[in-house]
Amino acid sequence: MSIVNTVCRLAARPIGMPKPSNFEIIDEPAGNPAEGEFLVRVEYLSVDPAMRTWMNAGRSYVPPVEIGEVMRAGGIGRVIDSRHPDFAAGDEVYGMFGVQRYAVSNGSGVTAVDTTVAPAPVHLGALGISGLTAYFGLLDVGRPRPGQTVVVSGAAGSVGSIAGQIARINGCRAIGIAGGEDKCRWLVDELGFDAAIDYQAGDLRAQLKAHAPNGIDVFFDNVGGTVLEAALSRLARGARVVICGAISQYNAAGELRGPANYMQLLVARASMTGFVVFDYADRYAEAVAQLANWLRSGELRSREQVVHGDVAEFPEVLLALFRGDSTGKLVLALDAR
Amino acid sequence: MSIVNTVCRLAARPIGMPKPSNFEIIDEPAGNPAEGEFLVRVEYLSVDPAMRTWMNAGRSYVPPVEIGEVMRAGGIGRVIDSRHPDFAAGDEVYGMFGVQRYAVSNGSGVTAVDTTVAPAPVHLGALGISGLTAYFGLLDVGRPRPGQTVVVSGAAGSVGSIAGQIARINGCRAIGIAGGEDKCRWLVDELGFDAAIDYQAGDLRAQLKAHAPNGIDVFFDNVGGTVLEAALSRLARGARVVICGAISQYNAAGELRGPANYMQLLVARASMTGFVVFDYADRYAEAVAQLANWLRSGELRSREQVVHGDVAEFPEVLLALFRGDSTGKLVLALDAR
Repeated sequence: MSIVNTVCRLAARPIGMPKPSNFEIIDEPAGNPAEGEFLVRVEYLSVDPAMRTWMNAGRSYVPPVEIGEVMRAGGIGRVIDSRHPDFAAGDEVYGMFGVQRYAVSNGSGVTAVDTTVAPAPVHLGALGISGLTAYFGLLDVGRPRPGQTVVVSGAAGSVGSIAGQIARINGCRAIGIAGGEDKCRWLVDELGFDAAIDYQAGDLRAQLKAHAPNGIDVFFDNVGGTVLEAALSRLARGARVVICGAISQYNAAGELRGPANYMQLLVARASMTGFVVFDYADRYAEAVAQLANWLRSGELRSREQVVHGDVAEFPEVLLALFRGDSTGKLVLALDAR
Repeated sequence: MSIVNTVCRLAARPIGMPKPSNFEIIDEPAGNPAEGEFLVRVEYLSVDPAMRTWMNAGRSYVPPVEIGEVMRAGGIGRVIDSRHPDFAAGDEVYGMFGVQRYAVSNGSGVTAVDTTVAPAPVHLGALGISGLTAYFGLLDVGRPRPGQTVVVSGAAGSVGSIAGQIARINGCRAIGIAGGEDKCRWLVDELGFDAAIDYQAGDLRAQLKAHAPNGIDVFFDNVGGTVLEAALSRLARGARVVICGAISQYNAAGELRGPANYMQLLVARASMTGFVVFDYADRYAEAVAQLANWLRSGELRSREQVVHGDVAEFPEVLLALFRGDSTGKLVLALDAR
């Protein structure tokens, strides 16, 4: 075989917003699978806010991507050559294949993708890590009870849009915070959120007060910064704040902004808890089955924004995510050349 | 009766550090108890960091002291005249009597003080709200397990010194953070902390790393600011951060400093929880009995710094607290005139 791989490697650590020059796009021969390995042709890449954090040096929940390494990414692709007993050519699989056309894998963390259940991009979104993050973060960490008020920030994103719907399905009042009228309309009209607040439209605290008059019981935060502060100022007694992400802070070039009013946790006898979805790996099957049931019944809706392009377009697609251009799950589809 | 009361009223809300001019000291006739009330001669006043937060307007866990009101304070005194069936002249009692020589009370929140168990100031400290705050905050909110590492900030204060000792009694490694060599020596030599870190001496993060090489399982925070940030940077997986106070922030004139690295809660899968001791009122008796047992056996040591003076000295004593001049429980004794 003589297959040309296109690879996106981290060239330099960004300061602030990532730039195309932080990446290097290189054509190079695809690897040959050794015994116990297989070769995947990557078809879909998951584009996620967390990618920005992987580009930083220092302690986090996963090791940083090192300079010169393939940029880390979850992806779905087809096995085209296998010397691994559990994977055969033709299998559709999910794994952390990275931002590249072809990946050699030893099967670690790789799972089968059943495209008869849903198209491949849904397996990166509602049935993938995004859906799992929403599921365990909301239900296990947030522990909402029926009738309680759940507020989700980044609500039009891949995780937030699922988290708010799971809240609604569980009998909660679901309020989304998102940027722009179109996203807010989508949350209420299409996803059945009880209310949506456009944080770009004005006084977020006053809007939260109007929509959550008895306070927020669960705040599922993907944003951080002033959005987190606004939510902290409106917590109900005994509230749970779920720390899922902080997209407003990921591209900060200077010092990050911590919630200045975190002592509201004391006033409200509330807790703020961080979690990482990977810790729930032994319960993924249970969650995916539940999410798939909700999708089938129509109670849960997924939306994927699939951008077709090449590996070279990855930096621009990542930037679009931080500009807030996308709604739902952002996916880069690597079409056949 | 014609008794002269000396009263400390809030005259103006402080900006930053309180000044004597924020208070007004007035001589006025003591009230006469109506039916169902009694008159207390206040003997000891509890001087606490939280007092500063009561002087601010706005939402908190108790209503603010209004301008013109008697400054709120817990105190111990003797009933000298009673028209209440449950209290008799001569009784020694604890209550929120305020910063004044004489208080009229209807008995709400007033409890008997048994000075045969310990002298009155101890009932404001280890056997009072300070001890109860340490007890419930550490054991109920922090939930340390034997062998775990517990770090307490403000460790030489009334709450912190008890919290660290309860951690030790429960088989934990107890590490205190305090300001100055003398306080640190007291924590280790007298109170049996496993280690004490002088935050004034240099790199707090490096010292935490040295003394808690496997990370912090429970952080009991009385301080906030950069001390909280240093602790967050050293959390063990699944750590609990107990938010008891934030003395470093109470006198900030500008915007408060939230923990810039709060996303370490995600990295460590940790939680940060606020609490208010008043919520545990129905378990005070259990806790006081336990604390008294530990005091009797010598496992727990209390220290009170009793300043003798008049009501007019209250503002200066409160300032001494914020300068870090005191060790253990700070008490203003109102000696007989």
